[in-house]
Order: sequence, then C-alpha cells, then structure tokens
Amino acid sequence: MACRQPLTPVLRRLTRTASSEIGRHSSKSQQALLRTTIRCLSTSQPRPLRQTPSRRTAQAKDEFTSTKYPEIQRDERFARLTPEHVAHFRHLLGDNAVIDGVTSPSAAIDDDLAPFNSDWMRKYRGHTQLVLKPATTTEVSQVLAYCNEHLLAVVPQGGNTGLVGGSVPVFDEIVLSLSRMNAILSFDPVSGVLVAEAGVILEAADTYLASAASPHIFPLDLGAKGSCQLGGNLSTNAGGLRLLRYGSLHGTVLGLEAVLPSGLVVDDLCTLRKNNTGYDLKHLFIGAEGTLGAITKVAIHCPRRPAAQNVALLGLPSYEHCRRAFSEAKAQLSEILSAFELMDAGSQALVTQVTGNTHPLADGGGPHPFYCLVETSGSNAEHDSEKLGAFLESVLDSGIVADGTLAADETQARTLWAWREGITEALGHLGGVYKYDVSIPLADMYALVEATRARVAEAGLIGEGDEFPVRAVVGYGHMGDANLHLNVATRRFDERVEGVLEPFVYEWIQERQGSISAEHGLGLAKKKYIGYSRNETMVGLMKQIKGLYDPNGIMNPYKYI
Amino acid sequence: MACRQPLTPVLRRLTRTASSEIGRHSSKSQQALLRTTIRCLSTSQPRPLRQTPSRRTAQAKDEFTSTKYPEIQRDERFARLTPEHVAHFRHLLGDNAVIDGVTSPSAAIDDDLAPFNSDWMRKYRGHTQLVLKPATTTEVSQVLAYCNEHLLAVVPQGGNTGLVGGSVPVFDEIVLSLSRMNAILSFDPVSGVLVAEAGVILEAADTYLASAASPHIFPLDLGAKGSCQLGGNLSTNAGGLRLLRYGSLHGTVLGLEAVLPSGLVVDDLCTLRKNNTGYDLKHLFIGAEGTLGAITKVAIHCPRRPAAQNVALLGLPSYEHCRRAFSEAKAQLSEILSAFELMDAGSQALVTQVTGNTHPLADGGGPHPFYCLVETSGSNAEHDSEKLGAFLESVLDSGIVADGTLAADETQARTLWAWREGITEALGHLGGVYKYDVSIPLADMYALVEATRARVAEAGLIGEGDEFPVRAVVGYGHMGDANLHLNVATRRFDERVEGVLEPFVYEWIQERQGSISAEHGLGLAKKKYIGYSRNETMVGLMKQIKGLYDPNGIMNPYKYI
Repeated sequence: MACRQPLTPVLRRLTRTASSEIGRHSSKSQQALLRTTIRCLSTSQPRPLRQTPSRRTAQAKDEFTSTKYPEIQRDERFARLTPEHVAHFRHLLGDNAVIDGVTSPSAAIDDDLAPFNSDWMRKYRGHTQLVLKPATTTEVSQVLAYCNEHLLAVVPQGGNTGLVGGSVPVFDEIVLSLSRMNAILSFDPVSGVLVAEAGVILEAADTYLASAASPHIFPLDLGAKGSCQLGGNLSTNAGGLRLLRYGSLHGTVLGLEAVLPSGLVVDDLCTLRKNNTGYDLKHLFIGAEGTLGAITKVAIHCPRRPAAQNVALLGLPSYEHCRRAFSEAKAQLSEILSAFELMDAGSQALVTQVTGNTHPLADGGGPHPFYCLVETSGSNAEHDSEKLGAFLESVLDSGIVADGTLAADETQARTLWAWREGITEALGHLGGVYKYDVSIPLADMYALVEATRARVAEAGLIGEGDEFPVRAVVGYGHMGDANLHLNVATRRFDERVEGVLEPFVYEWIQERQGSISAEHGLGLAKKKYIGYSRNETMVGLMKQIKGLYDPNGIMNPYKYI
Repeated sequence: MACRQPLTPVLRRLTRTASSEIGRHSSKSQQALLRTTIRCLSTSQPRPLRQTPSRRTAQAKDEFTSTKYPEIQRDERFARLTPEHVAHFRHLLGDNAVIDGVTSPSAAIDDDLAPFNSDWMRKYRGHTQLVLKPATTTEVSQVLAYCNEHLLAVVPQGGNTGLVGGSVPVFDEIVLSLSRMNAILSFDPVSGVLVAEAGVILEAADTYLASAASPHIFPLDLGAKGSCQLGGNLSTNAGGLRLLRYGSLHGTVLGLEAVLPSGLVVDDLCTLRKNNTGYDLKHLFIGAEGTLGAITKVAIHCPRRPAAQNVALLGLPSYEHCRRAFSEAKAQLSEILSAFELMDAGSQALVTQVTGNTHPLADGGGPHPFYCLVETSGSNAEHDSEKLGAFLESVLDSGIVADGTLAADETQARTLWAWREGITEALGHLGGVYKYDVSIPLADMYALVEATRARVAEAGLIGEGDEFPVRAVVGYGHMGDANLHLNVATRRFDERVEGVLEPFVYEWIQERQGSISAEHGLGLAKKKYIGYSRNETMVGLMKQIKGLYDPNGIMNPYKYI
C-alpha cells in the first residue's frame, strides 16, 4: 500500500510551478511518483474472472427458457418447421447458409445450433432447429417474405450479447443470423460517414476507423464490442461508454436499411446529416429489438478519433459530492469530458475482496463512500492535461473531492478503468446477482440503492453471516447519463429476496419518472414491466406500430411489448 | 482597403515567438494590427436590409396561395366553420383565446388574422377566419378532438418563420397557435435538461439557459430565433448553425408531449438520456411538420455554454481546397469546431455590391474563388486560440488556404459572420431569387452550383446586361453538414428560368443521393418533389403512418406528403 502516492500534495505543489505539467505531461518529480503508482496499480489490476452468472442463472444455468417461464406458451398460430420449408431455404441460400436440425437431427447438429439457442450468460435457452445465414439484403427479404407467408416465427440475431434474452429463441423460432453480412461498404474520411452491413462486429468497425488515414472513432463503445454486431447495436439502441460524449444512436445514425416481415426492403440508407423530407422512420427500427423487421445496413456519422485520453479516479464523501463533482466536470472539462462514472464503496469493496488487490485510493483516507472515474478525450494532450489538472485542483481545494489519482499513461488508465469495469465480474464471482439497469433523474439516482438496501435490511435478509441470503446491495454506473446499475449480490437463491425487491424497485423508479431499462432494452426479461416506464397510451401506440409492420407477429415473438 | 492587414505575415511572425498568443490572446504588436482590422471591419459590416423576397414573391407578394396554386383545391370533406363551432371554442378557451372572423367579420378582425394567414416572407397567404390560442395541453386536446369529430381542418402554428409554407393555412383551416403555451417548466443545471412548453421562443429559451447560475446553451440556433418557437423547431426538425457541434434534434430531444387529432395526449416527456423501453415514437413527431398532431411540450438536453468563441475567415483557390480545409479543421480543431461555413466568390460579390462595403479579404490577393468561415467554441479561450492559430498556420503553410483573418473580439466575430449571414438579405435586395436548400454528399456538393450556372449560361439566360433575366448563380451553406444553399438571383420573372432549373436541380440531386430539403422541410413548397429524395416504398410507409395517426387527414392538409 505504501507505494501509492496521494495526488493532493503533488497537485498542490505543481500549481505553484506550472499547472500544464500535470498528468501525462508531468514534471520529472511527478513522473517518478506516478511511475511508482503504475507499478502498484499494475499489480492490483483485477484478474480476469469467469463470466458473470446472474439472477436465476446461478441456480438454473442452461435451463430452457420454456421450462423456466412456464407461463409463456408457444403461439400455435405459428407453423412448425417441415422438411419442405428447410428445402426451400437450402435452395434459396445454399447449404452452407443453413444449420438444419429439422431434417437431420444429431448431437453434432445440436452442438452447432447451441450457440444460437443460448445467450452468452446462458440465462436463456431456446429450442431452435434452424439457423439461416443470408448473405445479402435480397436473401433476407426472400427469407422473411417466405416466413411471413408460411407463418414461421423468426428471431433476428446479431452477436447475441444482450442481457435480456432479446436475441435468443424461446421455442422453435428460426434464427436469422446476420453474421455473414459483415462488409464495410464505404467510408468518407471528410464527412466521417461509415456505411456497413449489419453483421459487422462493433470492434471491427472501430478498428477500421482507427486505422483510416485520418483516424475516426465509432461513436459507440461497450464491453461486448468484440462480439456484438452493428445491427444488434442499433436494434437495442445500445448506449455504452461514449454516449456522454457522442450522444445516442438516434443522433449518430444517419440512415439504415431494414427488411420488413413482408419482405419489403426499407431503403433509408441516407448518408446526409440533414434530410428533412418526410417522417424519419428509421428511428422506429432503432431500439425495436428486431420486432418490426431485420436491420441489414447502417450509415453512421463517426467523429475524428481523439488524439489524447486522460483518466482520473476520485474519492468522495457523499453522493451529493459526486453530483457537484459532475457539475464541475461539465463546466470545466466541457467539450473534452468523455466519461463520468460512479462507483459506491460497496462495489469497490467487492472488487477488492474478489481480486485481493489494493484499491488505488486505499491509503488516502480511504475507503471513501463514493468513487468517480473521470475520462477526457481531446485533440491536444497538453491542453487536456492542463484542463483536467485544473479541474482536479479545484474540486480538491473546494472539498468536493477528498482524494484523487491521475493515470499517467494508457496502462494506468486501463488499470483505473478496471476498478469500474471489474465490478460486474466481481459480483458474478460471488454468487447470484439481481441486476437492474435503470435510469433515474440525477438528483435521486443513488437514493434507489439506499432505499433498496434499507428494505432488504428491514426484511432481515442482508448481513455478514451465511444465514443471510444477501451479501451486499451496491450501485454504480454512468453518472453522465443518469444510468444506474443496481446490483443485489446474493449467497444463494431465496425467494424472499425477489419478493422484497419486486415490484418495489420498479415502483420506486416509476414514482420518479425513471426508466426500468436504461440501455439493455426489454427483450424477454422486462417485457412484463414496461408499464412501469411507459403509460398505457404509449404502449397502445407501440402495439399499433407493431401491428402495422408485422401484422402476423412473426418477428421476435414472446418479447418486447 | 488599406486598413486591413493580411493575416499571413502576422501568423508567420508569431510562430517564431509563441503560437499561443494568436487571436484573442494576441501579442501587443498583433493587437495593434487587429485593432486596425476591427475599425475597418466595423465600417464594412453589411447594413440591415429589408426582408428577403424570393421566387414568385418578387412578382406576386401577398397573393393568396389558392390563387397562386390553382391546382390545389379545397378538400370538400372538411366542414366549413359555423357560428356553432365558434361558440363551442369560445366556451372552451374563453373569448381572449379566439380570433374570430366567422361570426363577426370586419376589417379590424382581418388585420388581427393577417399575421396568422401569411408567412414572414409573405410568400404564402391563407383564408383562415379562426385562430385558437389554447393555454394548456388539455385545451389543445379538447380542440383537436372536436375538430376531428367535426372534420374541421387545422394548421398548428408556432412562430410562423418557415420558408416552405408549412405553418400557413391554404384555405379556411383553423390556425392552432401555440404561442400562449410559453412557460419554461423546469431546468436541471446538473443534467442540463430543459423542459418547456412548445410556444417558448427559441431565443427566450437560450437566454434563460445563458443566464442560469451554470450557463447552458440551447443546442439549436438559427436566424429566426427571435420569433420561432420550440414546437415549430421540433416539428420542422430545424437544423441551423449548431448542428455540426451538437447534432440534430433527434439526438438532443429526450422527450416530448404531443396531442393527436383524436385528442389523445402522447405523454412521452422523458427527461432521461437513456430509456430503452419500447419504440421511440417521439421521433415521428420531430420533422412531421404538424401533420400527425401538435407538439405541446419538449424536454431537451442542453450542453454547458462554451466560455470562449473564436472566428476566422479564409480565402481559398478552389472547392477542393475548401474540402481539404474542412478535413484539416475536423482533425485539428476536433471537439471545439462549432461551424464551418462555405461562401463562393459570387455570394460575397453580391454582399459587396449591395452594401458597398469592402470585403475583409479584399486586399490579400482577393477576390478568392471561395471563402470559409471557421468558428470554434470551447471552455478555455487560451487553448482554443492556440488550436485555431496552429490550424490557420498549417493550412496557410500547406497552401490549402490563400489568405485569412482572425476576429480578435466579439464585434469582429459578428462582422465576419455578417459576410456569411448577410448573403440572404443581399440576394433578396437585388430581385427575385430561386432558392434551393439541399444536402449533397460533400465531394459533389459545390458541383451543383457549377452545373446550374453552366446550364443557365447555355440557355443564354445569364449575363451582365439587363437583357439577361439571371444576374448570378451562387452557392453557400453549412459545409460541416453538407448543406448547400443554391441561389439563382434574377432581375425579373422569366418563365424560361424555372424551366431550365426544374426538374434539372432535383434530378441532379437525386442522382447523387442528396436531399431536396436539407433543413427547411417539405411544407407546401416541396410536397410534390419528395419523390426525388425518397423512394416510393418510403413514401408509402409514410402515408401509412399518416393514415394511422390522422385517419381523417385534418392535420395540416394539402402539404408534406
């Protein structure tokens, strides 16, 4: 622990010389201090853990969704797949584009089908016997028109990295995988407009942009970027880490191409930033989770890639102090602020407990009740460091922040980020977790964690000993987007816990005009809770739209609304 | 002319000392030079002119739209207003909320109705005899439900500042003025979310935000800000000057409240940046030009107000050089770039001709074939000046830019902007103008101006003498958004000109996947041209949406699609 140097005295000393030398462009003495910190931080980076189980999965991994949710019944309006159907698809797409468990069932085929039948957290599992992988929009159109005509239910599937079961079949729906439509079609380095097929993997798109002669950045970034696909990103209106800076996909997506269940191709692949000619229908498909049709192509506006990034980690005495720090960050860092993340003491304690590592702010009066991670991205490293240094100095001086540390290079930055990004893994390592991805107006955001903790305590369900089913109630998330991840970590399944949490959490959010799903969508998991975030009128209007585009209801049934 | 100092030697000299001292934070010797420039620029600021006439208006101002477009016939499905209807509205809203030319026609009432019957350019003029000014959403709902039941056509009207006749009645439609719903409902300085009624004037919203304890900025700015209203801004998806920096309203609007013709209140006034719970229907109303319902409230995300603004004016040898300069500006100015405007030599010559002023770059090897105005907005004036100075130096050194000048203060900045913003007024001063507000992929953007000029010349319609109907074909616009304003300035009406221009211009745009209406919408003016920017499938889907929300077609008839 002794190897970490608190930031405060360093900052204070630097102000008396040159504030521009803080951080990446630090003075020699500070560089020495920071190097020490690097060593310390590097060893304490959380170790990779196994994937996160969650909620029911800790008890019932790999169980069929249909078994787990017996209240959901197969809609018998839908036809059952026959060899004739399969022959038609083989003829249409070629044998290599079809994984067929209908005409030739076998253990080997089941293995091939398995990744399409189950999500990456193995929380949902379907019974599909047919995966189709069209290579062109025309093929998607032919597939859907046929399915619509023959009442065959379809689940469009991208990287299958969602958390709410939206991309996994429930019964025998056909999986329409977009993975073969993975071409980048064009990129204009002057306008920054990228046009790509829906099956392009997010990280591949970002890498392509980064390696362009004039490096650009995909305006969306999230943990699953190595697997998730652009079509899925749009379909779930993925939020992620860059939303604070670059805004939502409703702002950055300029055009898209989608195929309706009728086979009609909605060709709205506009590459212009301004086009006021009629209703902007593309927005209906952004966030529709594949229930209106399948997105096949996307045109998106990409910003220049920032040349410089800086990261700081702060320790704060209360949530109110976090709000004030965020307000100050917006004022002082303004156009270069690219992330403002919140972590409570409990979440950091869990990471410490699981990894055995020392928290970067452990010996500066810590543990602190709250931590914030601040990231800046800009075109001039020196200017950015100066701004971030001045910001840190002012929030330390004014007592808003109790302690802080600045990453001096990319390795350090990754280490600081690991204390934010490692929370999910640490939680999963400890047992089952009730996870709520919600959005609440900032003033009240953290109060949900406190209210939930109080409620679980009142019910006598939380404590240190093994007799308590709940280990901890923690909160963290994207403060910049008022997006809270409320997590209730359990030692074992206990039905009293769910009874205490629900509908309490949803009602609490509803009373404060929050959203029960900030960025993960509805899928199967939250279908029945939409009423807590949307009034009856809105749900009625949504059903009208669904009926308009998918009158037979074949697209991604049993989910969404 | 001798009072202006070219920027180049100043910049070059400064580089040898300290590049951070350019611009607002200039060295003493440069400050002296810039002061000289201020004096010069101040006297050459374009004088205010009368409002711009355009196209047919130069010949037929104040003509009724129904006379000017005899092909548009009143839809006789709509009821004609009776004293009973008026009595109902008086009872509902109170006498002060009704301007009634139905039961008590008089010259005085006609005067009261006139501003609601005509747009600010006096290009469109309707026959309304009834203006309703509800004060609450409930009243809007009651009015629309009644109109829907009685088949009374309605035109929602905000500030009536559009350019395509979208907010003006054609026949006897009732004008639903939102002007009394002008309250700012809430503002959260931490999240930056403003909630306001639709009748709030854009400038009032921005002034409110600017004077907040933590100053914020409305993410939209446009010339008509002193009159236009938020509801109209959303309904037309107004683009304006800040789009390059803050993105479109589809990205910044978080929620809205609208009333459908049935009277149903669409309560989607979400104040959260992330809310993935169902189809995002609010986007249908953004840009719907009042054809689906009336927007009554808006929640919008507002950024912190930048502390510093800098403006530079550049002279360039070709359009290709402008593209390269824009690319460099995006790379070097990145997060602080807030405007990149294009003006051709012809547009600047017209401003010079009308105002009699000397162009700021007249004696630095000018006139140049092209000019670009670059604006930066950021949180740190010193950093921004340094970045802008370095950018200017690099584009001058590399020969991309031939000459340039930097504004040293707000007055100078306004003066430079006047050479961009004064074009519209100068054009109008000279006679009738055919105006096209279009969007074209950047590589081809200016080629439309050249192609149009060549076509008009080939037809023998353009020249210096009075025998030529066309005075000039000029282009300018928001280069950052690929948004071109093509203007054909005429001496008098000559039907050969329109024949040469249309459908040529629209076909040219269509071939390049451009948009025939970048930011002004469709309204009445462009209704029949939508086919050039949207395929039949898209128009069909739009009509489906219109039919869904407004089955009786009472909302803003005769327009849009």
